[in-house]
Amino acid sequence: MAVYTDIAEDDLKWFLTEYDAGTLLSYKGIAEGVENSNFLLHTSKAPLILTLYEKRVEKSDLPFFLGLMQHLSARGLSCPLPLPRRDGALLGSLSGRPAALISFLEGMWLRKPEAKHCREVGKALAEMHVAGEDFELKRPNALSLDGWRGLWEKSEARADEVEPGLQGEIRNELDFLAAAWPKSLPSGVIHADLFPDNVFFLGDQLSGLIDFYFACNDLLAYDVSICLNAWCFEKDGAYNITKGMAMLEGYQSVRPLSETEIAALPVLARGSALRFFLTRLYDWLTTPEGAMVTKKDPLEYLRKLRFHRQIGSAAEYGLSL
Amino acid sequence: MAVYTDIAEDDLKWFLTEYDAGTLLSYKGIAEGVENSNFLLHTSKAPLILTLYEKRVEKSDLPFFLGLMQHLSARGLSCPLPLPRRDGALLGSLSGRPAALISFLEGMWLRKPEAKHCREVGKALAEMHVAGEDFELKRPNALSLDGWRGLWEKSEARADEVEPGLQGEIRNELDFLAAAWPKSLPSGVIHADLFPDNVFFLGDQLSGLIDFYFACNDLLAYDVSICLNAWCFEKDGAYNITKGMAMLEGYQSVRPLSETEIAALPVLARGSALRFFLTRLYDWLTTPEGAMVTKKDPLEYLRKLRFHRQIGSAAEYGLSL
Repeated sequence: MAVYTDIAEDDLKWFLTEYDAGTLLSYKGIAEGVENSNFLLHTSKAPLILTLYEKRVEKSDLPFFLGLMQHLSARGLSCPLPLPRRDGALLGSLSGRPAALISFLEGMWLRKPEAKHCREVGKALAEMHVAGEDFELKRPNALSLDGWRGLWEKSEARADEVEPGLQGEIRNELDFLAAAWPKSLPSGVIHADLFPDNVFFLGDQLSGLIDFYFACNDLLAYDVSICLNAWCFEKDGAYNITKGMAMLEGYQSVRPLSETEIAALPVLARGSALRFFLTRLYDWLTTPEGAMVTKKDPLEYLRKLRFHRQIGSAAEYGLSL
Repeated sequence: MAVYTDIAEDDLKWFLTEYDAGTLLSYKGIAEGVENSNFLLHTSKAPLILTLYEKRVEKSDLPFFLGLMQHLSARGLSCPLPLPRRDGALLGSLSGRPAALISFLEGMWLRKPEAKHCREVGKALAEMHVAGEDFELKRPNALSLDGWRGLWEKSEARADEVEPGLQGEIRNELDFLAAAWPKSLPSGVIHADLFPDNVFFLGDQLSGLIDFYFACNDLLAYDVSICLNAWCFEKDGAYNITKGMAMLEGYQSVRPLSETEIAALPVLARGSALRFFLTRLYDWLTTPEGAMVTKKDPLEYLRKLRFHRQIGSAAEYGLSL
């Protein structure tokens, strides 16, 4: 949660004159998104989200993110749709920051998702992968193999503070992944952060995907492995094969996985577990105490990583072969 | 700004079954209110505010606050209206906290209010004072004379850190106010915190007053003096007599001030300046660095206090006698 920037009413009204968005009735800073400041606007036309992009987001990436939402939305995926300004641009400027006006998606994220929800998420992820096929812009994944190495170097010296022996374990893991990482799987636009708080439901029906600010080009099956990590483990650390099965079935009902993708799944899952372990470890070691940001426990992802290490084949995730 | 408590979707849905509020479509934690956690809900019927009362609010005060909003609203004042549950109660329980569902007020607070807005605020304040006349519950003002003394004792030892000589100055001020404080002015329900962020406008039209969580019984003219302090000084510390005149005219167009109230205004304004100085001083000295809460400069109110000390009569505030 974060609202970094307050907006003066006059500045916002001026900003809105560039759009066909109706008359402004109210705006509230909302506790959503960690990288940006978000406001929920009521206008005489419809509720809208206003996003101000703070420093942590690369301005040069914004055309990719906004263009992708527009592209996916045009292909029928339910996701936030950037409103174009009268001059056609998707991006404006407000309070000294790049800013976009985005459609408001009704729905709630599930604190306790069940297998039936995992099936819907799997399906929506595959739909996103298919809908993204002809998106023309490209964005490399900064948080893939090379990125992990750089991230690890920032935390390595203090890793054993978190758990003794961690330094050696992660070094070996990075070496293993560098050698074993699949080279020729189908790739395309991936969400790369499809955690429960980025998927909205109305009742048991999935109503939309949000937060495309980690989206990039990478292996499609890697995105599947991120969702297995994010959705199919219980709070006690146990893998829930029923959820895994539902998610993979949901995914394959739209886009069947190839044999090579299936074979690579355990390695990809080790990679995605390591990726979230490393960012959480870095945040854990660098976020000051009392900073009113919820620190996420990196050990959760270390345990997931160890689980994937002892997986023999994707069947153990619940995949019906 | 603050959202202290997250709510699980299922808990919220369960909570809403006690109300005739429609189907839940979305809820977002909003950056509004410092003492409580606030959420903006969209339902199939209307937008609503859900407030969870955190520790800093006395649970025994809640019937006063919620009953007051209901009372004022019934008398035509535009303010948030608590929704009764099916059993008639205004207060429920959610995530282990007392919780209320309150109507959503469209409008925005003005970062740069002008004299015409001060006139509207004066008018609305008087309307609130009149509408509150027959409200039956009572709540003494914990932040009046006695309360200031207690608050000061917590900061006194470190006051000279903020400005040398402050200790003596504030002690003298407390003694002066104890002796000079008016005893027999008209009293009633006051808002006690009607700062710009608690008054919503749509265009130049005042659309409502919010945040009644400091409301209490005290001198009505003391509430006027709080508004003079909160609305009629410029950022550079100068008193803007045009704004003061507009505010007092607006107030008196609904409820004329008596001669004794007018005579007491400079003393009351010293009191209200001291009250906000003391709470800000306390927060300044006790809030840890990096706590992501905006600390408000106590010296702003020290300067206002000094200004009021050299006021000869209420005419200097812009009051046409």
